Amino acid sequence: MRIVGIRRTGGDVEVASLSDDGTEVTVVAPLEGFWADPAGHLAAEPAGPTLPAAEVERVPPVLPGARVVCIGLNYLKHVAEGSFRDQELPPHPTLFARWTQSLTVDGAEVPVPSNEDGLDWEGEVVAYVGATLVDATPDEALAAVVGYSTFNDLTSRRAQKLTSQWILGKNGDRSGPLGPMVPAAEVGDLRDGLRVRTRVNGEVVQDGRTDEMVYTVGDTLSLISHTFTLRPGDLLATGTPSGVGYARTPPWLLQPGDVVEVEVERLGVLRNPVVGNDIRRKEV
Amino acid sequence: MRIVGIRRTGGDVEVASLSDDGTEVTVVAPLEGFWADPAGHLAAEPAGPTLPAAEVERVPPVLPGARVVCIGLNYLKHVAEGSFRDQELPPHPTLFARWTQSLTVDGAEVPVPSNEDGLDWEGEVVAYVGATLVDATPDEALAAVVGYSTFNDLTSRRAQKLTSQWILGKNGDRSGPLGPMVPAAEVGDLRDGLRVRTRVNGEVVQDGRTDEMVYTVGDTLSLISHTFTLRPGDLLATGTPSGVGYARTPPWLLQPGDVVEVEVERLGVLRNPVVGNDIRRKEV
Repeated sequence: MRIVGIRRTGGDVEVASLSDDGTEVTVVAPLEGFWADPAGHLAAEPAGPTLPAAEVERVPPVLPGARVVCIGLNYLKHVAEGSFRDQELPPHPTLFARWTQSLTVDGAEVPVPSNEDGLDWEGEVVAYVGATLVDATPDEALAAVVGYSTFNDLTSRRAQKLTSQWILGKNGDRSGPLGPMVPAAEVGDLRDGLRVRTRVNGEVVQDGRTDEMVYTVGDTLSLISHTFTLRPGDLLATGTPSGVGYARTPPWLLQPGDVVEVEVERLGVLRNPVVGNDIRRKEV
Repeated sequence: MRIVGIRRTGGDVEVASLSDDGTEVTVVAPLEGFWADPAGHLAAEPAGPTLPAAEVERVPPVLPGARVVCIGLNYLKHVAEGSFRDQELPPHPTLFARWTQSLTVDGAEVPVPSNEDGLDWEGEVVAYVGATLVDATPDEALAAVVGYSTFNDLTSRRAQKLTSQWILGKNGDRSGPLGPMVPAAEVGDLRDGLRVRTRVNGEVVQDGRTDEMVYTVGDTLSLISHTFTLRPGDLLATGTPSGVGYARTPPWLLQPGDVVEVEVERLGVLRNPVVGNDIRRKEV
C-alpha cells in the first residue's frame, strides 16, 4: 500500500491509497481523521471513492502543524565528508527542524533560491509517528512508527552555513519532497539495511544502506519524547548517506534543468526537477 | 487593541480582541480568515459577538503551519554572557526554529521536562508577518509586519546543548508563551527602544531595550525571504537580552512553583507558572 495526500478541486486535504500502476487513488479519510487513528486506517480497506490520479492535486499527507524533525550526521561516511569531519561524533543525534511548509511531493519542481549557487541533494528515509509519545522507551517509540517514505532533504548550503544553526538553508520553498508513505508492516525494520540511492540526471551520487545509521529511529524518537510530546503525524527524517554535492572536489550542486531522484528499497523512487528562482515570484 | 486566539466550546480557533480590563473578548474572524487579510481586519471594528473571557479557551492566534523563526544572539550583552562569547559575532542573524505546537498563552502552566534541571527564561518580542514576502528588501519586510507581542522563549538547556543544533531544547511542551498581539501601528518601531524585562518570582533578571538588537526585524525578514517565502501568520522572535539563568554563577533555572513574567513596554506583561513533568503524562 502506498499512502498519499490529495486535494480534490477546492476541497480539503484527504489521505488516499495510490494504485500499483499510479493511475488511480482511493480515498482513505480526511487528513485529520486519518491521523486521529493512522494504524486503524492502514489496517482497513480504503472505503472512499476511487478517482483518476490525474484529476486530483497531490500534496503531502502531513498535518500543517506536524513537526518534521531531521537527523543530521547519521551516516559515518557522511560525517567524514562534511564540515564536521574534524570534530568528534556527537554522542546524541544532531537534530534540526523543517516546517511542513517546506514539504512537497514526487514530481514537484523545486526552485534554487536567488542567494544560492544551486541546491544540494540529501536522499533519505522519513519515519511517520502514529501515536502520542511522552518519555517513551526506544522500543515503545519504534512501535509507534506507522510508515516510512522516501525524502530528499534538498539544502540551500549558503543559507545553511551563514551561522552555526542550519534551519534557514533547510526550509527553502518546496525543498522537501516526500514520496508515498508505505506502512511500517510492509517495510520491516530499517536495521535490515535498505539501500538508499540518489541519482542526478541518472548518475548515482549517493549509495548507502539504512543499517549504517548511527542513531536508530527508536532511540531518536525516545530522546525527543523526553523533551516534547510527539503526536501522530510527526515526522522523523533519518539523515543522509555520504556523497552530497558540497563536499565534492569541485563542489557539485543541482542547477535548473537537472532532475534528482531518491530511490529506497521497498519505498520506491522520488523524482524532482530543479527550476530557477523565478517560480517563487510567480506564485505570490 | 490586543489580539488573542480563542476557542469556544468544541469550536475552531477564532481571532478576537481583548477588552482593556481583560474580562471580555470580541470575535474578529476565524483564524484562517484573519490571516487571509490581517491588516484589513485590524483596521476594522471587530464585528463578531462579545463574550466573557472566562467562558472561552485562550490559544495562540497562530496558524498551525506558521513558521516561528527565532533569532539567537541578537543582543550583544547576551552574546557576551553565553556559550558563544569566545566566538566572533556572526555577520548574519543566527536563526533557529520553533514549531507552533510549542506555543502557548499567558497564564499557561509550563512543565520542566524530565531530562532537565529546570527551564531557562528568555524574555523577548515577537513580530507577526502580515503579507507574502519573496526576495523582499528590508523596508518591504518591515512594512509587512502587522503586530508584535511579548514572548518567553523558555529553554531546555540540556536538550539545547546536546549537539551543535539547538532545536530540541527550544520546543518543549508549552515552552513558548505568547502575549496578546498589539497592532504594529500602535507599537511603532522597535528601534525606538522598548524596554524588555523578565522577572522570576518578582525579581528582575533581564532588563534590556529593543534598540540594542544587532539584527533588525526588517533586515532579518528580508534575509529569510531570499531562501523561503514568508506568509501571513509567520512569526519572528527577535532574541533575548542578557541575564539568562544558565550563564549565571551559580546557574539559576526555573523550578516547579516559580512564576516567570516578561514585560515589554507597549506590549504588556506575560506571566506563566512553572510546573513539574507530571503534567505531560496526564495530557496523553
